[in-house]
Amino acid sequence: MSVTAPAGFAAAGVTAGLKKSGGLDLAIVANLGPLANAATVFTSNRCKANPIIWSQQVMSDGRVSAIVLNSGGANCYTGSIGFQTTHATAEAVAEQLQVSSGDVLVCSTGLIGEQLDLGKITAGVFDAGVALKDAAASSAAAGLAAAQAIMTTDTRPKQATQVSPAGWTIGGMAKGAGMLAPGLATMLVVITTDAVLSSAQLDAALREATRVTFDRLDSDGCMSTNDTVSLLASGASGVDADPEEFTTALTNLCRDLTLQLQGDAEGASHDVAISVRNSASETEAVTVARAVSRSNLFKAAIYGNDPNWGRVLAAVGTIPEADAAFDPYGIDVAINGIQVCTAGEPDQPRELVDLTPRAVSVVIDLHAGTVGATIWTNDLTHDYVEENSAYSS
Amino acid sequence: MSVTAPAGFAAAGVTAGLKKSGGLDLAIVANLGPLANAATVFTSNRCKANPIIWSQQVMSDGRVSAIVLNSGGANCYTGSIGFQTTHATAEAVAEQLQVSSGDVLVCSTGLIGEQLDLGKITAGVFDAGVALKDAAASSAAAGLAAAQAIMTTDTRPKQATQVSPAGWTIGGMAKGAGMLAPGLATMLVVITTDAVLSSAQLDAALREATRVTFDRLDSDGCMSTNDTVSLLASGASGVDADPEEFTTALTNLCRDLTLQLQGDAEGASHDVAISVRNSASETEAVTVARAVSRSNLFKAAIYGNDPNWGRVLAAVGTIPEADAAFDPYGIDVAINGIQVCTAGEPDQPRELVDLTPRAVSVVIDLHAGTVGATIWTNDLTHDYVEENSAYSS
Repeated sequence: MSVTAPAGFAAAGVTAGLKKSGGLDLAIVANLGPLANAATVFTSNRCKANPIIWSQQVMSDGRVSAIVLNSGGANCYTGSIGFQTTHATAEAVAEQLQVSSGDVLVCSTGLIGEQLDLGKITAGVFDAGVALKDAAASSAAAGLAAAQAIMTTDTRPKQATQVSPAGWTIGGMAKGAGMLAPGLATMLVVITTDAVLSSAQLDAALREATRVTFDRLDSDGCMSTNDTVSLLASGASGVDADPEEFTTALTNLCRDLTLQLQGDAEGASHDVAISVRNSASETEAVTVARAVSRSNLFKAAIYGNDPNWGRVLAAVGTIPEADAAFDPYGIDVAINGIQVCTAGEPDQPRELVDLTPRAVSVVIDLHAGTVGATIWTNDLTHDYVEENSAYSS
Repeated sequence: MSVTAPAGFAAAGVTAGLKKSGGLDLAIVANLGPLANAATVFTSNRCKANPIIWSQQVMSDGRVSAIVLNSGGANCYTGSIGFQTTHATAEAVAEQLQVSSGDVLVCSTGLIGEQLDLGKITAGVFDAGVALKDAAASSAAAGLAAAQAIMTTDTRPKQATQVSPAGWTIGGMAKGAGMLAPGLATMLVVITTDAVLSSAQLDAALREATRVTFDRLDSDGCMSTNDTVSLLASGASGVDADPEEFTTALTNLCRDLTLQLQGDAEGASHDVAISVRNSASETEAVTVARAVSRSNLFKAAIYGNDPNWGRVLAAVGTIPEADAAFDPYGIDVAINGIQVCTAGEPDQPRELVDLTPRAVSVVIDLHAGTVGATIWTNDLTHDYVEENSAYSS
């Protein structure tokens, strides 16, 4: 179960013909109420796709009745024609569901710089609208179809659920396999809940949850133009959720989806958690971990099962002093539990490090404070190069 | 001819046994005078190798009699033992050449975190000292041997010469094939001249020349711990060089070596020049071009001969507004002469772009000012991943 796990939601995934593969490529998630509260986080990329520009307008009143998502085209850098396509998509959904088009979020993912076929989209929206009127639209199968319809180079759908003993539920689905970097990733995420929360409460919870989950996934350093994380609340449980408990559950759900995205990153053979300890601040810990996660040399070494801690420190050293306090010769590095460097000198032999498992832990102790943070990344592999030199989904 | 092209220099390249391959791995360039003026630019990485720490001390008086360089080990993160190795290397050179060890620059390149074998180095320095006493040490062959001895994953030595009609000459050699990024690259460069110039004049010329050449090479975004560019002046021509003419010639020589480094970057199949035009400032133009040069998705697309301009604009969009002024929907992009995007919308069909040649030109017109800059980078290839997942030279 995912987006249909909470009460008050219906979902559909259909084939509109946008993907060359002929697979499911258009999804709608409808909020059946009684509430229509919502919050969203969008990409911080200045080159925003047309669906982002549209959806930002929709969010001005914090009210969302439905979200429509397509794979097979990003509708980014497609000018005024592209914006008209997004607008017409929202209108088609509004007509099918008898809601206001101003309450319909639109998300697109795929190649940048090519127009979407509006005829195929409106036909797909019609098919999805028919499916949504069926009682089965609130089933787990319907949620799964929606999760499949938003996949691009993903090899599997990503879903997660959190159930509170207080009587409310959160469900979520995500797509994203490349261009995974902060602010956010090439990533579309739809989260639903039947808890009773205001749009302002949802917004606060979503910002806190994404800050420590999706924003700390940095698979390949590339930031997309289309990223959207949306959180829709139906209130159908009738239970007023405690905001703190809700934020914790939402963070757990977002972490679950984040790790699913990491585990399915394009071409990756290792999931690498880079943890910085004893930093002067959380922000500085993130800066240090992110610098390592961006080093192609480090990432290629991990692919080759080479515990090359010199490349870790070389990456750490690129950070200006104003951005992170540390003594470059006082740093410890452990890889998969073996402390290979202590205070900037070789410690345990690198031969002791076993990098054959997919999960890799790199721990960097700055000895500069008391806080820490983790960035999740992947290795740089032949398959990454292959997939991204031939990408045209 | 390279470092031995100007009068007043001798060079040697010998096999000290530091490289597993058994090739030349230790070089000395001696300044025979009458002047011993010098300038250097070191890596801005905070994790500096022991030879950098030593050489910074040597430069305090702007006087250099000789430079010794080894491949087969970076002598970085090797603690006090590593520093003693560097110091002893300088002492050995000083003894051979009858100069002060405080006037001997030391450069090392290779793996980080492993101790160099001091016995092999001192034996190599002895052999090089013998060779330097021969008249042939000022020949082109001697310069070539030195250029070969500093190679690591380089496939060919890099040398350049500039001759002024005023009667002075500049020669240079460089190594560097991976970790090529600003401030500077994994790069050792020795430049010699017989012009009469003070250390302060050499310093001003070197900073200006490297700013627009080596600092604009960003092959893989990784910055080394050992980078050194040194400029030694013997004054042996007896000609007072015009500083402006000298800076121009030095810049041309540095650009020549920069493009040789780009052309031999690890695993690369394309040399990509990313030129930003009509920016509000040169700094902003560099920021925009560098952001594109750091996009693995863009670099993988170029490898696959895919003129994916969407990835260019997605990378440009990641730059905060405070760092570069532009309208994200007002940008033009041309790839190899074909304008594929005008004002943020598709223009010429991407099929018209021919990416089969090794040289690739990407021109980004920001329409935000009147100045520009170029960053040189490479594509992201299978061979890059292969070389860097198995690197242990």
